[in-house]
Amino acid sequence: MSELSRRSGVTVATIKYYLREGLLPPGEATGATRARYDDAHVQRLRLIRALVDVAGMRLDRVRAVLAAVDDTTAGPHEMIAAAHEQLSPEPDPPPSAGSRHRVEELIRELGWRVTPDGRHSRALAAAVDRLAEAGQPLPPEALATYAEAAHLIAAREIDSMPDGGREELVAYAVTGTLLVEPVLLTLRRLAQENLSTRRYDAS
Amino acid sequence: MSELSRRSGVTVATIKYYLREGLLPPGEATGATRARYDDAHVQRLRLIRALVDVAGMRLDRVRAVLAAVDDTTAGPHEMIAAAHEQLSPEPDPPPSAGSRHRVEELIRELGWRVTPDGRHSRALAAAVDRLAEAGQPLPPEALATYAEAAHLIAAREIDSMPDGGREELVAYAVTGTLLVEPVLLTLRRLAQENLSTRRYDAS
Repeated sequence: MSELSRRSGVTVATIKYYLREGLLPPGEATGATRARYDDAHVQRLRLIRALVDVAGMRLDRVRAVLAAVDDTTAGPHEMIAAAHEQLSPEPDPPPSAGSRHRVEELIRELGWRVTPDGRHSRALAAAVDRLAEAGQPLPPEALATYAEAAHLIAAREIDSMPDGGREELVAYAVTGTLLVEPVLLTLRRLAQENLSTRRYDAS
Repeated sequence: MSELSRRSGVTVATIKYYLREGLLPPGEATGATRARYDDAHVQRLRLIRALVDVAGMRLDRVRAVLAAVDDTTAGPHEMIAAAHEQLSPEPDPPPSAGSRHRVEELIRELGWRVTPDGRHSRALAAAVDRLAEAGQPLPPEALATYAEAAHLIAAREIDSMPDGGREELVAYAVTGTLLVEPVLLTLRRLAQENLSTRRYDAS
């Protein structure tokens, strides 16, 4: 176990906790106080740490992601999609019927193959509601431009997905999705500053 | 004051608090217990509420934004840029020299006219550091694609900036910047799901 701790960077106390909670399968017993752990354990631990440290997930969400990883009847896409769903919070209050309809229409027009009325769609509809409530409703062309930019971003990301085991794929997808978010948002602020400077200097 | 409260949607108690704190200039006294408030007061209150409710700003940041609004030696662009700076937190720990240099190079290559090593740039450099620390360093082409997408997004937004007084412009810019963020992030998750489905279905 000390070897597993060294290789994964997770303390022995935390490894024991994950074993008790059933998040980490037991090692193969090789004596009264010794067990053999393999690469699968290291990968599993790295995934759990990514979910806890990077995504800030509580244990119930970690369990849901691990269940998706362990369900080998699902292919890699379904697994990543199921794990990813755990990243979007269920919106509270729920989105309006109008915004849900608008998001459904957008997805149909774009021809995107996504879970209809899934958690990401509901989160998007709720975000559209917030703008309308603040007196800045999103025009249809703006939503279309944002979707185009999102496609450009995601195309680059999906192309550079590494090969790897199921745990590695999910850890990569969750870490990449979350840690790139502040990169995108700060680049947008810089792009706004650049274009605002040009516009007002010209006028 | 009750009329001002009705028009702005801010309670009388809160208006009195903003007057005491000097965030809202006093009205023109028209009697011992009466004062006249005008449209400027309504606009100022709406801006303060946007900063507090939407941006979640503490009073020191609100004050910094209002100082930018009141500094009429600065044109609308400088005002919005100064207010916007208050949206990006100062990264803690500070970004590495390597990432700062990388962000400077990117901005130079793009020809963006932005504050060199300003708060948005430092926040971007810190976000780049976080990815490297998580073992998923951002390749240069990825950063270039993200910048291209950010430009596409910002171009649409700067084109649709309304005309208006200084308070209105800042309230619009802050609200739009922040409330659109979850729209962009959920669209990216949907775009990832779409492209992931297509990739794994094809393979």
